[in-house]
Amino acid sequence: MGDATGGPSLLLLVLDLSGIFVFAISGALVAVRRRLDVFGVLVLAGTTGLGGGFLRDVLIDATPPAALSDWRYLLVPVLAGLLTFAFHPALGRAERVVTLFDAAGLGLFCVTGAVKALEYGLGPVPAALMGMVTGIGGGIARDLLAGRTPAVFSSELYATPALLGATWAVLATLAGFVEVAVTVPGALLCFGLRMLALWRDWKAPLPRGPASV
Amino acid sequence: MGDATGGPSLLLLVLDLSGIFVFAISGALVAVRRRLDVFGVLVLAGTTGLGGGFLRDVLIDATPPAALSDWRYLLVPVLAGLLTFAFHPALGRAERVVTLFDAAGLGLFCVTGAVKALEYGLGPVPAALMGMVTGIGGGIARDLLAGRTPAVFSSELYATPALLGATWAVLATLAGFVEVAVTVPGALLCFGLRMLALWRDWKAPLPRGPASV
Amino acid sequence: MGDATGGPSLLLLVLDLSGIFVFAISGALVAVRRRLDVFGVLVLAGTTGLGGGFLRDVLIDATPPAALSDWRYLLVPVLAGLLTFAFHPALGRAERVVTLFDAAGLGLFCVTGAVKALEYGLGPVPAALMGMVTGIGGGIARDLLAGRTPAVFSSELYATPALLGATWAVLATLAGFVEVAVTVPGALLCFGLRMLALWRDWKAPLPRGPASV
Repeated sequence: MGDATGGPSLLLLVLDLSGIFVFAISGALVAVRRRLDVFGVLVLAGTTGLGGGFLRDVLIDATPPAALSDWRYLLVPVLAGLLTFAFHPALGRAERVVTLFDAAGLGLFCVTGAVKALEYGLGPVPAALMGMVTGIGGGIARDLLAGRTPAVFSSELYATPALLGATWAVLATLAGFVEVAVTVPGALLCFGLRMLALWRDWKAPLPRGPASV
Repeated sequence: MGDATGGPSLLLLVLDLSGIFVFAISGALVAVRRRLDVFGVLVLAGTTGLGGGFLRDVLIDATPPAALSDWRYLLVPVLAGLLTFAFHPALGRAERVVTLFDAAGLGLFCVTGAVKALEYGLGPVPAALMGMVTGIGGGIARDLLAGRTPAVFSSELYATPALLGATWAVLATLAGFVEVAVTVPGALLCFGLRMLALWRDWKAPLPRGPASV
Repeated sequence: MGDATGGPSLLLLVLDLSGIFVFAISGALVAVRRRLDVFGVLVLAGTTGLGGGFLRDVLIDATPPAALSDWRYLLVPVLAGLLTFAFHPALGRAERVVTLFDAAGLGLFCVTGAVKALEYGLGPVPAALMGMVTGIGGGIARDLLAGRTPAVFSSELYATPALLGATWAVLATLAGFVEVAVTVPGALLCFGLRMLALWRDWKAPLPRGPASV
């Protein structure tokens, strides 16, 4: 189950579904903070959880996306949305809780996105970029729909940890590492760097001169 | 014409083009309300009318989308845009006129989207969801481009009627109903529920607790 | 190199990469004006430069997009972003500099988009529209991400020059013109009309009556 020929390995499936779950929670929390109703919460949970993977699968021509042919990919964001709707006071509704789940999703998706892109024949550099795009895509869709400034444009490092995690996954795959050594360190690298950047307020260089808007 | 092998049946084609027409009018009315010029009206009419179907066709790998290989799919939103531009005072420009055309498009697209997804081999649950996505996709594109809060996040039921209409279309297809019994009740179910929700102000449950934004 | 069987001709490749370069500069300048950091500048440069082509390639089923299989397509927006980040005071940061680069990208992309769509078997009318969509797609993505009103809804002509340039490219291709006579006049026609519209303040007809928003 999940380990069959042609499908992803069990480990990759678990990591992919975990990424969908935590991203969907981040989307559902944004919806709760905006006082959307239960269906708005589910739509934003689904968009955030599945958006990055949809974008990746359409670009690498892995259509129809897994989310449309495998019921587990649909069940997970629905569960995440309903759980968040029911238990959000326990989860906490502060912006930093959204950010925590978002960072976890970023770490998981940058790795699974890069590995899947390699499997579909992309070269190392495009595969690493596709990992980054998978990671940041869901959050961009969430923030556009909710009328927020996309997290990727926040002042702390965001795209860079995703790119580094994806780069690890690509290099480790090319070096022939076993799957758990490809995926887990890459995801932890991205998640750790993102959380460190938030905690220590690491910022990337800004343009010189005064703002002109 | 339209009934050839491989193409959709005449009934499905008529329903699909009708959905494009009414969605395009809703987009054109939003553009008129924003005082966009005639080309802005045409762009928003085209995006709204064709956006949901583009999204569906890309996701189920039915590319190039019908809109790019069949001139009728291009003519319809252009006509809808020009008619709206010329006759908008007669159509009325109140927000509830936009909403009426939007509900009609929602009903038509949730059904044609679900039926097309089934034809392309999707399972029943993904096909119903794809019907919902086809229905809400065009309106989301319209509202993002026009800088409005997406209708799907409005306080009255929106995604639910689309999901129910699409579910009818899937179940009726699986039960072997003739096409007219698949499509017409499904579209009316969705349209009727949406209008009832607006009229009776049906709202879905909201999250507990105060807003924290 | 670039002229191999199956790939685009050298001229088309140069025009496509030039379009990516100037659009990426327009995106990077918007990011600089918004005081985004260096990675925000790179993300907006990449989205603006590659967005229209991604949309085109996904719609005409030319996946994976060239940008994911050819490293030159990735290098160009990164270079454009870094150059803009380093030298933006020299480039100027006024809105009209953004507009100038945007118009150049519009001219280049409407032509390469139309020619590529013809190569992939689309009819003349859809191919011209796909050229227009390729031209306006990157700018729409840039403006949505940066929270600006899309340039296509600005009061001066925008989509029309792109449609006319793409129409030239389609007609000249059908008439059997050599490639340089297909591409260069089409790009200049679009760029010239857009700049004239900005300079002379050409506006398309507006809807009658007062605004009702």
